[in-house]
Amino acid sequence: MTNEPDILATIREWLATGKYHEFLGVELVEADLAKQELVLKLPYKADFERMPESGQWHGGVIATFIDIAGDFVLMLATGKGIPTIDLRIDFVRPAIDTDLTARARIVRAGRSVGFADIELFNDDGRLIASGRGCYSTL
Amino acid sequence: MTNEPDILATIREWLATGKYHEFLGVELVEADLAKQELVLKLPYKADFERMPESGQWHGGVIATFIDIAGDFVLMLATGKGIPTIDLRIDFVRPAIDTDLTARARIVRAGRSVGFADIELFNDDGRLIASGRGCYSTL
Amino acid sequence: MTNEPDILATIREWLATGKYHEFLGVELVEADLAKQELVLKLPYKADFERMPESGQWHGGVIATFIDIAGDFVLMLATGKGIPTIDLRIDFVRPAIDTDLTARARIVRAGRSVGFADIELFNDDGRLIASGRGCYSTL
Amino acid sequence: MTNEPDILATIREWLATGKYHEFLGVELVEADLAKQELVLKLPYKADFERMPESGQWHGGVIATFIDIAGDFVLMLATGKGIPTIDLRIDFVRPAIDTDLTARARIVRAGRSVGFADIELFNDDGRLIASGRGCYSTL
Repeated sequence: MTNEPDILATIREWLATGKYHEFLGVELVEADLAKQELVLKLPYKADFERMPESGQWHGGVIATFIDIAGDFVLMLATGKGIPTIDLRIDFVRPAIDTDLTARARIVRAGRSVGFADIELFNDDGRLIASGRGCYSTL
Repeated sequence: MTNEPDILATIREWLATGKYHEFLGVELVEADLAKQELVLKLPYKADFERMPESGQWHGGVIATFIDIAGDFVLMLATGKGIPTIDLRIDFVRPAIDTDLTARARIVRAGRSVGFADIELFNDDGRLIASGRGCYSTL
Repeated sequence: MTNEPDILATIREWLATGKYHEFLGVELVEADLAKQELVLKLPYKADFERMPESGQWHGGVIATFIDIAGDFVLMLATGKGIPTIDLRIDFVRPAIDTDLTARARIVRAGRSVGFADIELFNDDGRLIASGRGCYSTL
Repeated sequence: MTNEPDILATIREWLATGKYHEFLGVELVEADLAKQELVLKLPYKADFERMPESGQWHGGVIATFIDIAGDFVLMLATGKGIPTIDLRIDFVRPAIDTDLTARARIVRAGRSVGFADIELFNDDGRLIASGRGCYSTL
């Protein structure tokens, strides 16, 4: 794992900036600049529940976490925050009574457009959702 | 506009149920059972901000609102909450200093799978984002 | 309907250019420059069949027709052929014993990226498939 | 590599069945039943050209090849041909003067819905396009 201090500090700072990010509480687990991969964690809290007392993640928080992971992994290549052009999410299994870990990788960081692949796993390492984002790198 | 009281009451109740829904505050504007269309509103609050003091919506809240609008419009056909299979979102323009209105319509409600189209508009009636969701109707 | 002769001639010429286009045989029905909408037709032939003697369109030809319709409607705004960045297709109903008509409209033609919505209909006017393409307008 | 003779024979037969499949000429390279992965090859021919003499693959053929690879990899789990519900394709790089190899894997084969991931590579092993398909496994 290559952990470049500057970009990591920037990612940590951005993850804590803005009220929606504060609400979420996404944590940086590791970033591999050489492989252009990023691992983030989002601990469950009742604020994310789909239904009262269900312990089940709302799909909107899952979509949010996928968007953030894709956006931030592309920061490893671009060094700055970039706008999402489009995003798609496949909900593979329900996420219940678990934290979520996102593994994101850069598929391509082109001059105008970048693609990222994102997978979310539960505490048992099972795939919960996967996503693909297209981001503007202009 | 056909406003069937029961289904509307159910939609209003679900929109207020669960802590993530409480956090959001989505409002039912109208539902047309005949046309299978639904209009929802989500007033802006600072909790949704992308960056401090920016007045700009975080993409994750936009994705969430699209998922909810697609899910709930299919309730007009199925009468119950249904799981999202997959979701795609196109971010057409930034949403800044505005509330958002979602217009969702059923593309098809089949026996096993349903499709919904969702468009989000700002206060000036300009398209902010659009989405397509595929939901399980089993 | 606004039928600007030059862009229409260009679209017709491109639809007939290249061996894959020759294989397909897509026809221009009408183009509305003001509304930024395009209608194309693709008559069925056995070369498109999913299974022998089925009369059913192969999904790959449906995907192709959606890509072409999205690409060409954006030519109404850009005046030139542009690369597809990404494409999504929902297969709403099987297409059997029918020609297909594509109705494409520009969702947004931005400086770097454009979005198009495309719907395919059978001879009875029922929706067969719908798509959304994101194209590079640089 | 586990090469189960029956399912392989079925896949080979289906790849050669129907006039659109005959037009394409997709070849089975290998199938791994344990890993639920499939490798297919599609040799270039001028019939696939985007523009005359360009040697560049038309996006529609790329979309077709992705759909087929996703559909057929799910046959490893279901043993039968299944309908595509929706499909998304990211065009990562142009494909010029090259054959294409598809690597498809099952993300999940559920009771009603299955997901497949598909990547297309050129002769240099570079990623050309990637896709995700959602298929009906009912």
